[in-house]
Amino acid sequence: MAVYTDVSDADIRAFAAQYDVGDVISFKGIAEGIENTNFVLQASAGRFILTLYERRVDPADLPYFLGLMEHLSARGVPCPVPVSARDGNALRALAGRPAALFTWLDGLWPQAPDAAQCRAAGTALAAIHGAGRGFSMTRRNALSIGEWPALLNASRAVADDIEPGLAERAASAMARVTARWPRGLPSGHIHADLFPDNVFFSGETITGLIDFYFACQDALAYDLAITLNAWVFDGDGAWSPARARAMIGGYEAKRPLTPMERAALPTLCAGAALRFFLTRLYDWARTPADALVVRKDPMEYWRRACFHADVGDVSDYGLTP
Amino acid sequence: MAVYTDVSDADIRAFAAQYDVGDVISFKGIAEGIENTNFVLQASAGRFILTLYERRVDPADLPYFLGLMEHLSARGVPCPVPVSARDGNALRALAGRPAALFTWLDGLWPQAPDAAQCRAAGTALAAIHGAGRGFSMTRRNALSIGEWPALLNASRAVADDIEPGLAERAASAMARVTARWPRGLPSGHIHADLFPDNVFFSGETITGLIDFYFACQDALAYDLAITLNAWVFDGDGAWSPARARAMIGGYEAKRPLTPMERAALPTLCAGAALRFFLTRLYDWARTPADALVVRKDPMEYWRRACFHADVGDVSDYGLTP
Repeated sequence: MAVYTDVSDADIRAFAAQYDVGDVISFKGIAEGIENTNFVLQASAGRFILTLYERRVDPADLPYFLGLMEHLSARGVPCPVPVSARDGNALRALAGRPAALFTWLDGLWPQAPDAAQCRAAGTALAAIHGAGRGFSMTRRNALSIGEWPALLNASRAVADDIEPGLAERAASAMARVTARWPRGLPSGHIHADLFPDNVFFSGETITGLIDFYFACQDALAYDLAITLNAWVFDGDGAWSPARARAMIGGYEAKRPLTPMERAALPTLCAGAALRFFLTRLYDWARTPADALVVRKDPMEYWRRACFHADVGDVSDYGLTP
Repeated sequence: MAVYTDVSDADIRAFAAQYDVGDVISFKGIAEGIENTNFVLQASAGRFILTLYERRVDPADLPYFLGLMEHLSARGVPCPVPVSARDGNALRALAGRPAALFTWLDGLWPQAPDAAQCRAAGTALAAIHGAGRGFSMTRRNALSIGEWPALLNASRAVADDIEPGLAERAASAMARVTARWPRGLPSGHIHADLFPDNVFFSGETITGLIDFYFACQDALAYDLAITLNAWVFDGDGAWSPARARAMIGGYEAKRPLTPMERAALPTLCAGAALRFFLTRLYDWARTPADALVVRKDPMEYWRRACFHADVGDVSDYGLTP
């Protein structure tokens, strides 16, 4: 939640003049986006989000992210659309950073999602997976299972600082998940970070899906596992079978899981929990306690990984196997 | 530039339901406000700013601030208007803090104000002074000349850390300004913090004046001195006679200065510079270098105080005495 880069009134006017958006009426930095700096730009032609990409996003990945959003939006997914300037390019520069202008999306994200919202999020995820077919650019998952050992090695000391022996226990958990990791599941373009704060609602209706900056190609059911972890645990850290059923039901209304995907779900959920545990652990050591961004507790995701490790089959999730 | 307090989607819907503003369409924290947390609230009835007052604002002062904004707005000053809820009260609570909803103001604040913008700001300041007459609530200036010795005493060590001997030099400067401090100048309700980021423009036209949370009763010409310090020095720290002439000219187009005010201007400007030097010094020692808010360099205002100390009369500002 931060504005990392200031943009002057003169700079924003000159930037906006490259587009057919009319005059700049107001311009405010918004406290959203951990990786990027975002502004609300009100112009005479409408309201937009201006995103400046900070150093954590690789500029080489931006054409993939912007292209995917354009592709999905054209197929009915309510995601931001990159707006092209008069020269036809959507990817530009501002204040020394890559920058792009996006259409505005109404809605509020749910801080305590209910089952109906979980169902809608499941359906929206399946819609992304379906609409992503035919998008021809490629991006490998830079945070896939193959990268986890390096992530853990970089954070062994901090893990043991948090809880003695944690690094070793995490390595064992990783080995178990790796041994069971499914191969050959249906794959495609995945969001890979569809947390509640990336989903805008008006009541129970989804009005916006944002933040495609972890999108990549991987197993579709792994994306569902990431999303289940992000939505289904309640405020006390307990798995909610009702929310899980709703999310999977919503997903399957658009794309039924294969029997292999269903059987692999506990392993995929455990892996997805480990992935967020590992990146939070990595960031934990590198973020001062009083820095601009709020540090996310890695142990929240360690506990989720442990929960999934004890799951036999999906009946333990409250689902029909 | 921070959001100090998170507000959930459920909380904001319940809050908005107390007003006649319709449904909540979107809600985003904005990276503005050092003292408070601000959100843009889009509702079906229009766009609003929602302000949560954090601990630096004394809740006992809020009726004065909100009342002054309402008084000024009713007299044509383009400042935010506190919106009353259905029960008639504008001052409410949200997330455990005092909170108020305000009308939205378009415009951009100028990062490098030109002479025309300085002229407009001068006129707007005089408009505040004129429209404030008849506002019957009172608030003494909690940062007036009488408070400076205590502020300096609380920051002597940090002053000498920044520059050996600075605390003693500041005490001397303060004594000189105090000895010359004018008495009996025209006084009234002043903004006391009309920096460029509190003034929104569309081109050369002012569309909004915000942040009345230092407003109080004091000498009107002291408010002009604060505003001159905030607008007239250029990026290299040099006084711009053209901008000074424009700002004073703009002010006098609405309220000519008395000969006593004109003669006192160098002392008022030196005092105004010391006031911001002292509060920045105080905050410097108490804000970690990597905290949520950007620390403001006290020395910028020390140099301004030194500049004014060398001024004989207003001809040194590029003005006709």
